Amino acid sequence: MADSKFYQTSEKLTLDQIAKLCKLKLPMNVDKKRIFIDIFSLDTADKNHVSFLDNNNYIDKFKSSNAGACFFRKGFLKFAPKKMVPLVTDDPYHLFAIIANAFYPPKKITSGLHPRAHIESTLKFDKTVQIGPGTVISGNVQIGHNTQIGANTVILSGVTIGKNNYIGPNCTIGYSNLGSNVKIHNGVRIGQDGFGFAMDRSGHLKIPQLGRVLISDNVEIGANTTIDRGTGPDTIISEGTKIDNLVQIAHNVKIGKNCIIVAQTGIAGSTTIGNNVIIGGQVGITGHLIIGDNVKIAAKSGIMKNIDNNKTVGGIPAVEIRDWHKQTVIIRKLVKKRFNEK
Amino acid sequence: MADSKFYQTSEKLTLDQIAKLCKLKLPMNVDKKRIFIDIFSLDTADKNHVSFLDNNNYIDKFKSSNAGACFFRKGFLKFAPKKMVPLVTDDPYHLFAIIANAFYPPKKITSGLHPRAHIESTLKFDKTVQIGPGTVISGNVQIGHNTQIGANTVILSGVTIGKNNYIGPNCTIGYSNLGSNVKIHNGVRIGQDGFGFAMDRSGHLKIPQLGRVLISDNVEIGANTTIDRGTGPDTIISEGTKIDNLVQIAHNVKIGKNCIIVAQTGIAGSTTIGNNVIIGGQVGITGHLIIGDNVKIAAKSGIMKNIDNNKTVGGIPAVEIRDWHKQTVIIRKLVKKRFNEK
Amino acid sequence: MADSKFYQTSEKLTLDQIAKLCKLKLPMNVDKKRIFIDIFSLDTADKNHVSFLDNNNYIDKFKSSNAGACFFRKGFLKFAPKKMVPLVTDDPYHLFAIIANAFYPPKKITSGLHPRAHIESTLKFDKTVQIGPGTVISGNVQIGHNTQIGANTVILSGVTIGKNNYIGPNCTIGYSNLGSNVKIHNGVRIGQDGFGFAMDRSGHLKIPQLGRVLISDNVEIGANTTIDRGTGPDTIISEGTKIDNLVQIAHNVKIGKNCIIVAQTGIAGSTTIGNNVIIGGQVGITGHLIIGDNVKIAAKSGIMKNIDNNKTVGGIPAVEIRDWHKQTVIIRKLVKKRFNEK
Repeated sequence: MADSKFYQTSEKLTLDQIAKLCKLKLPMNVDKKRIFIDIFSLDTADKNHVSFLDNNNYIDKFKSSNAGACFFRKGFLKFAPKKMVPLVTDDPYHLFAIIANAFYPPKKITSGLHPRAHIESTLKFDKTVQIGPGTVISGNVQIGHNTQIGANTVILSGVTIGKNNYIGPNCTIGYSNLGSNVKIHNGVRIGQDGFGFAMDRSGHLKIPQLGRVLISDNVEIGANTTIDRGTGPDTIISEGTKIDNLVQIAHNVKIGKNCIIVAQTGIAGSTTIGNNVIIGGQVGITGHLIIGDNVKIAAKSGIMKNIDNNKTVGGIPAVEIRDWHKQTVIIRKLVKKRFNEK
Repeated sequence: MADSKFYQTSEKLTLDQIAKLCKLKLPMNVDKKRIFIDIFSLDTADKNHVSFLDNNNYIDKFKSSNAGACFFRKGFLKFAPKKMVPLVTDDPYHLFAIIANAFYPPKKITSGLHPRAHIESTLKFDKTVQIGPGTVISGNVQIGHNTQIGANTVILSGVTIGKNNYIGPNCTIGYSNLGSNVKIHNGVRIGQDGFGFAMDRSGHLKIPQLGRVLISDNVEIGANTTIDRGTGPDTIISEGTKIDNLVQIAHNVKIGKNCIIVAQTGIAGSTTIGNNVIIGGQVGITGHLIIGDNVKIAAKSGIMKNIDNNKTVGGIPAVEIRDWHKQTVIIRKLVKKRFNEK
Repeated sequence: MADSKFYQTSEKLTLDQIAKLCKLKLPMNVDKKRIFIDIFSLDTADKNHVSFLDNNNYIDKFKSSNAGACFFRKGFLKFAPKKMVPLVTDDPYHLFAIIANAFYPPKKITSGLHPRAHIESTLKFDKTVQIGPGTVISGNVQIGHNTQIGANTVILSGVTIGKNNYIGPNCTIGYSNLGSNVKIHNGVRIGQDGFGFAMDRSGHLKIPQLGRVLISDNVEIGANTTIDRGTGPDTIISEGTKIDNLVQIAHNVKIGKNCIIVAQTGIAGSTTIGNNVIIGGQVGITGHLIIGDNVKIAAKSGIMKNIDNNKTVGGIPAVEIRDWHKQTVIIRKLVKKRFNEK
């Protein structure tokens, strides 16, 4: 599957190992020692590969697939090719993700501080830390075990970075504390001072920005995303939240656990987002709002009011999702009616 | 208020100093030599702190605040706690900003050219200039007194930078002249050639981009914002204008004085924006338009026509703000009516 | 036209050279050896300059222009000033672009690997390659003839870069193959792993991203744009496509030939875009869609369904452009009617 110029060869896994990793029971009549060497999509897999079916749209590709083993839901068993080992589960994509990570484990990093890095910090990092060429680490920075910091990234003074972090090249991080297993992609900007002014036509007066950015464990932040530090309170990203590319998070925003925030979304200052919130791409959320737990927001929505727990909303300004669809239907009907009347 | 890992301890100010900075008259019965040590929000301040009330929503916090002194408007005097020194003003947030800057004056920069900077410019900078490690200054670049340029930033040849500027790490600046007191945050891109093509299905032909970017005094530009240089005319950002993160400003755009442009807004080529214009987040403005002075544009609006001075607009395409609100109301009413009829 | 601090003096061209470059027949009575020294707009050109008229709005400036020669369409001949050499063509802007490139040919690059670049690649580059200070080239990177890579850019291991490319400063490029004549502006991020998770409230599980980014000849990519690598299939940008600043292109997206994608547009994962597609600014396109050839999408549209070849669409969700305009008209009429009735 993967170009060997960029990726290591995939691991080999026996059917038994796959079953154990996924906590699945295998059918009786299979060879548990059978070896699989890679993951592939349904139409490109051969007998040595594992695949998955998660979507009715791919049922035809499933029926004719040569995949040696495949994760799918019980109801599809009757369509499974005879030679395919069925890996029946309620959550095929999740189990596929587990196996994909086993075939392609994270590369071991080459540890060490590159001689062309510039390190001012007097704090000691252990030998597992990797810091790339051109990287600048200012004074009083702490970096945890097994963390990797890419080339030409700049870490400003006082920043604390946990263990097992990956920070890509060309990032800038200041005024921040980062937990463990945090992944920060190329070009991310964290901790610059936010957009706070006492507005005045004779000259807007900057408010000193005196807070920090606090990022918890298992957070991922996409390329060229910007996260401003708080004004006094902190900007907070809680555990397990995943943020896509080119997202803007303003000062004092608080984001709960396990949220998903898709690309080019912007969240204005002092807004609080609950846990397990899913925000589509290019959404805009006004400042000083409270968005409840488990809320879902359709792509391109404009949020101007608080949203209660468990709501799904869409539109500009956003309404409950079924009302947004009704708005769309009504406007289209009006166009048909009025313009035909003439 | 501020984490000492990142911030210097705040200054101390007497009540008398505060009054003088704000040009306020103190009440008769107060101790003018009383010392204040920091700024805090209403609910976290104690007797040694200064706070402010700018918004009716916080009236309950105000009533029970322990802040030693507080800026607020006359009408709130009757709700002020007895122990609080009242700092009565028509513009509490502006005065709070003045005091906040006095408690937290800008850090003195450590001047000097870092030995790991690469400086090709033959022009001399005075001793107050600070240039970080990994920073690249190309030929013929001028840098004014007391200006600071962050690590790994790249300044291309011919650029002129005024005095007291702050340019963050990881920026790229070319084909530009910058005034004084300009603040440019991490990852900003200024002066790359704009998106100008003679379009043709057999291959779009690039138009040479021969202009510059001219940035006046007291401009602030947010992280990862992009400003293209002009095609022949220049791209111009006038005095006092503040631009947030991830904003796109295309070639030949001219922006007036003291504008506020919130995050993720995009302004297409050759559009002219007046003075004191306020543009919300994620606004899009078509090319070749003229936006008048004092215009306000609601977040997420799409501007497809010129806008006269002093108008407030919203929507896609944008209309006067009250018409936009009416559109929203009518569509919601239609949904209620039609779907209930069925 | 151009500030000599930033640009070389323009070349000199005779009328005859101009005619040959443009494959135009000159009028009989002109001096073919007459020399032109620069390009200017209609209102600023003098007798030594070439200009163009492409738009009825500028007809008054055309009538009073002092330009020595001017490209325009046949129908305008009657309005041309007497002293102007008429360069009559059906495509004045395209011919102007040809001449502009002749007056301002690309600067010859100063070749060589800068001593402050850090080059790990064991592959040999020829002497025409230019690599700036602070640039990091990882192992096994190939770079073609006459390619220029700006300061502080990071090229990750295995990347192949064709000939005559320009890669600006402060970029990050990994897991990619680039064709020839590719232009990548400041701060672009290519090849980071995409936003793919098996979502789960107990913790979203990352899917390994095992594909590449493949960029064909003559592609241009604007400042701070982000292009994620594929999950297994590749992310593909085909020949001649031009992408503006701050655009987001997710994993597995395939973009056809000669497309134009304006700033701040986002294309979600696995969507396929045809050839000659024009996408306005701030457009959002959902994942797994198919957008046909020659489609045009109005700025700020939200695309939620496949679009057939040759359609022009607009709105959120997008409809055919004339229906979108009708929607706008109807809503405005409703506002007038209902609010006047009251």
